Amino acid sequence: MAGNTFGKLYRVTTFGESHGKAVGAIIDGCPSNIMLSEEDIQLYLNRRRPNDSELSTTRKEKDKVEILSGVFEGKTLGTPICAMVKNEDIGTSEYNVLQNVFRPGHADFTYEKKYGIRDYRSGGRSSGRETIGRVIGGAVAMKVLKEKSIHIAARGNYDLSRLSDGKDEVDYENVDDSLGGIVECKVTGCKAGLGEPVFDKLDAELAKACMSIGAVKGVEIGAGFDVANMLGSENNDQMSAGGKFLSNNSGGILGGISNGNDIIIRLAIKPTPTISKKQKTIDINGNEIEVELKGRNDVCIVDRIVVVVESMVAMTILDFYLQNVNV
Amino acid sequence: MAGNTFGKLYRVTTFGESHGKAVGAIIDGCPSNIMLSEEDIQLYLNRRRPNDSELSTTRKEKDKVEILSGVFEGKTLGTPICAMVKNEDIGTSEYNVLQNVFRPGHADFTYEKKYGIRDYRSGGRSSGRETIGRVIGGAVAMKVLKEKSIHIAARGNYDLSRLSDGKDEVDYENVDDSLGGIVECKVTGCKAGLGEPVFDKLDAELAKACMSIGAVKGVEIGAGFDVANMLGSENNDQMSAGGKFLSNNSGGILGGISNGNDIIIRLAIKPTPTISKKQKTIDINGNEIEVELKGRNDVCIVDRIVVVVESMVAMTILDFYLQNVNV
Amino acid sequence: MAGNTFGKLYRVTTFGESHGKAVGAIIDGCPSNIMLSEEDIQLYLNRRRPNDSELSTTRKEKDKVEILSGVFEGKTLGTPICAMVKNEDIGTSEYNVLQNVFRPGHADFTYEKKYGIRDYRSGGRSSGRETIGRVIGGAVAMKVLKEKSIHIAARGNYDLSRLSDGKDEVDYENVDDSLGGIVECKVTGCKAGLGEPVFDKLDAELAKACMSIGAVKGVEIGAGFDVANMLGSENNDQMSAGGKFLSNNSGGILGGISNGNDIIIRLAIKPTPTISKKQKTIDINGNEIEVELKGRNDVCIVDRIVVVVESMVAMTILDFYLQNVNV
Amino acid sequence: MAGNTFGKLYRVTTFGESHGKAVGAIIDGCPSNIMLSEEDIQLYLNRRRPNDSELSTTRKEKDKVEILSGVFEGKTLGTPICAMVKNEDIGTSEYNVLQNVFRPGHADFTYEKKYGIRDYRSGGRSSGRETIGRVIGGAVAMKVLKEKSIHIAARGNYDLSRLSDGKDEVDYENVDDSLGGIVECKVTGCKAGLGEPVFDKLDAELAKACMSIGAVKGVEIGAGFDVANMLGSENNDQMSAGGKFLSNNSGGILGGISNGNDIIIRLAIKPTPTISKKQKTIDINGNEIEVELKGRNDVCIVDRIVVVVESMVAMTILDFYLQNVNV
Repeated sequence: MAGNTFGKLYRVTTFGESHGKAVGAIIDGCPSNIMLSEEDIQLYLNRRRPNDSELSTTRKEKDKVEILSGVFEGKTLGTPICAMVKNEDIGTSEYNVLQNVFRPGHADFTYEKKYGIRDYRSGGRSSGRETIGRVIGGAVAMKVLKEKSIHIAARGNYDLSRLSDGKDEVDYENVDDSLGGIVECKVTGCKAGLGEPVFDKLDAELAKACMSIGAVKGVEIGAGFDVANMLGSENNDQMSAGGKFLSNNSGGILGGISNGNDIIIRLAIKPTPTISKKQKTIDINGNEIEVELKGRNDVCIVDRIVVVVESMVAMTILDFYLQNVNV
Repeated sequence: MAGNTFGKLYRVTTFGESHGKAVGAIIDGCPSNIMLSEEDIQLYLNRRRPNDSELSTTRKEKDKVEILSGVFEGKTLGTPICAMVKNEDIGTSEYNVLQNVFRPGHADFTYEKKYGIRDYRSGGRSSGRETIGRVIGGAVAMKVLKEKSIHIAARGNYDLSRLSDGKDEVDYENVDDSLGGIVECKVTGCKAGLGEPVFDKLDAELAKACMSIGAVKGVEIGAGFDVANMLGSENNDQMSAGGKFLSNNSGGILGGISNGNDIIIRLAIKPTPTISKKQKTIDINGNEIEVELKGRNDVCIVDRIVVVVESMVAMTILDFYLQNVNV
Repeated sequence: MAGNTFGKLYRVTTFGESHGKAVGAIIDGCPSNIMLSEEDIQLYLNRRRPNDSELSTTRKEKDKVEILSGVFEGKTLGTPICAMVKNEDIGTSEYNVLQNVFRPGHADFTYEKKYGIRDYRSGGRSSGRETIGRVIGGAVAMKVLKEKSIHIAARGNYDLSRLSDGKDEVDYENVDDSLGGIVECKVTGCKAGLGEPVFDKLDAELAKACMSIGAVKGVEIGAGFDVANMLGSENNDQMSAGGKFLSNNSGGILGGISNGNDIIIRLAIKPTPTISKKQKTIDINGNEIEVELKGRNDVCIVDRIVVVVESMVAMTILDFYLQNVNV
Repeated sequence: MAGNTFGKLYRVTTFGESHGKAVGAIIDGCPSNIMLSEEDIQLYLNRRRPNDSELSTTRKEKDKVEILSGVFEGKTLGTPICAMVKNEDIGTSEYNVLQNVFRPGHADFTYEKKYGIRDYRSGGRSSGRETIGRVIGGAVAMKVLKEKSIHIAARGNYDLSRLSDGKDEVDYENVDDSLGGIVECKVTGCKAGLGEPVFDKLDAELAKACMSIGAVKGVEIGAGFDVANMLGSENNDQMSAGGKFLSNNSGGILGGISNGNDIIIRLAIKPTPTISKKQKTIDINGNEIEVELKGRNDVCIVDRIVVVVESMVAMTILDFYLQNVNV
């Protein structure tokens, strides 16, 4: 139990079900005297919101953040920052049909097995809406990191041709399926010396941080899986004067510690499991059934997940930064 | 600081430099009344040792484990198990030449930046010899898991043709380079319900556990990076009666919780950075130099890393098992 | 940084300043399928509220709790329970005078030194109002413990004659000073075997839990400080058939582990530091000044702290219970 | 399970049973580049050893410490320091008689209940010999703290007249009983700002650290239990220019954070439970028996426990120091 807190010194604890009263986070360990407003967080939450793209869910939430504590006269106090977003466009009725069904690719089955109870409305705690707490934690982390000249930026990539069925354009009206993709994240401005040896390596914690995002099924650092087919002479990053590296196959991390180069992470994003195609599954009593899921879901989640990845990476980097104050 | 402990309830803290007096581990939280002998651990340490294969280092250590505490009359007491291996075939002299050199692909540079001091003899703490502590922790975990009918097995894969330079056989005498590969690990017998939501997902902790192994640069669960090009209908694992899944793209984990299927992890292993080919680097004063490293190193580490991967996975699974006693 | 979370498996993270928007807590690790309502928590919060006694502050808050997550159809989901209380009777203006003053016996000086900023309104985070989060965490813990037949009850004791100045009755209108006291807490129904060896002993964690309450300056287990003048034969609890102890000087704990007897804890509560008597102190610029504090404060906090003590003890016991599932 | 690690950033994990092969500790998180030798630790271990006083056990161990890792060329590496002491004067035979007996005042009963197995030789893990690991951790912490001009010193106090039975001198040959006492510890040189709010207060962690020592049954900070009978005007520490406090009832801690004054802790030490007087107890089968314990035990443990108290306090202070780098 109790897996809803991330970090050691910069600690983010999130809460909230998709269709409960609110979702949010408590940030404990944020340095004091940092300028912080609700707008600072809102900017990042807006990037996470469904947009007008045809790839995005039609659930429309304003996702307006409210800071309840930890900020006084515009500055952080060093005490816990609680920030939350109320759930508004809930529309429960459409989900009642899911009460007794284990949707393929979702956590319905495993939550039922683990807890013996679940909030079946849109996945409850396992919904993508849980990532609002992550973005709150990440937005504040990025505000702090900017003061240290550390910047984090991710971008997504996916192949729409898989949805267009050989045609020139995707017929979004009739798409009955969803699409996966790749997110790549880069950290710039991070000096050498960040990270811990052995188990709490910088790359190990980044891998955990990113793999904890619901849709992620793979994590690479630097050359990643390509190293499996490389020779040592091809993979080693040679050095020149001033501690400059002549390549960056390591992705900015050697022996679990940052080497001053850009930190590079690549993530595999699975296609959203909610699709309208007919699928075989079972109900809560173990009976085989077939389902066609017609919810308000994303055709491709990649664009919306970019800011979640940045957030997890930011929280990880800041946490190490606070542990490595001599860096 | 302080990254040398793994786990929450099954906690393994390792110690030791490659050329110090000893390497080993304290295991805290092992259940009591488990039959345990030094031989139980030795079996796994022997699999980690260099073997007679031409791919392996010529450093020859017996790696004889000694249990110092926590076992009484052949059974675990529930108190900390300290087990260690003395370093014997040290041969320091050959390493003095490395005192002022940052070897490409090694952690020499980052340790120096982080700590302002390092044990330069074969990488000190960042040496592969550090994994002895992991295998001690893993061997005991596997002993406990076997009683729960949970089994863990990994295997390695690599492409020797890259070393043979177009010829039929590799000329090991004159190989001046090293080779990467893949390790795949499978957990069988794990019931549904293991893992925690949100940040401490089973796949997130497995990713951390595996990425913390020095040579690992990528982690995949189930279909892994293939999901980036899949449609939801291709990736979703549909279900049939009895909670059986019709495929296993999820790698046995849904929403961070085990679903009862085999758990599948694939890792990218980088080629050993120590090669005899000439490489550009810098010395401790920042001067550019060229090095040809002629140590006792592995041409391909993949076969030896297999038991380390099993160990990390076993520690992770047991730790969750102890947190999920209702499973 | 980051000291606002209590517990390992039953984890309570609190937030909120006295005069911010709200105070509350996230409870992570509460078992699922426990019946839980806002009324269950409200009962305990009401015991913490200022009452009509002359000993109590005149700040009147309804302290109405609201559960935001983690409960569905009247039962806990196993996911984080966020519960909060809005601050209402804030009356800020009266506190502006304290902006530049370090009140004697309060944390004003140390918060300023640590954070370089503080919410000066009634102590901000260091206000007794912070204990609302503790009571939320404790109320839920007690609900769970009751199902295991473990009960926790504390009571306070103080000597009003110190306030009456030799007269028969205390003249509350003109009291310019405050009073300390003792709280004793008893845990019944706890079986033998709870607690961990060495550092995380049951008594060690209880001591931490109780000493973390702002007003507590001493903690005793069982015979407590009396043992300093006892002989072994007087202090040892001898045993009779059935594992019954003939006395309880140990306070129910041997070697850090519960022995099946009642667990007994006694706490020293300091007098509330806010008094209207003239006191010497300094302002934020280091100038010596004299203050007479005329806030809405408690003459004696002991009665109100009783439920806070029960809460901290309950959280500690439940946390160990979840770690000791074989008990 | 798993309570054998102390600290967050300065982490000490101890191991070892009284009559196993060795006792010791791994220190993780010690800053690098600190001069450290075995002699530095030995000095503190010698203070813990039984001395020639009539109050002390006749078990004679050299308690020679050996550092296995983490130190290179006389300086700490920043990697885990493993240090151990081999058990030598074991003399097991005399303890076999205890195999089936629960000694009054000892942890025999609770260990059996918790683990279903125990090393009955002199208490195994619950023996006072466990404190060697604490002193190792404390000795290194004090070495680091001295560089920050923070010093820690404790002293013991006990009333021998209780043993002399009205006569002028204690007849040590025929003493059949043991004696408790008080240890007071003072920390000097600690600046204001150390400690965390709410749960991880400096006094809360000190209380845990000290209460985790086997013989401790009470902890006071500053005026301690005296505050129960004090008025606010008597207890508040007023201030004068320069942030000087006119008294130190707070014991150097306000709101859980150091205020720059000396930190004062007082501990109640129970009499050693091993006495030769006849006592009632039960055997492992629940039968009532009487025992007269004739081991090699201490009449009064207070003098030997002083260095253990200093060690626990040092570990606590250093751990906070590393978390509060701006102090």
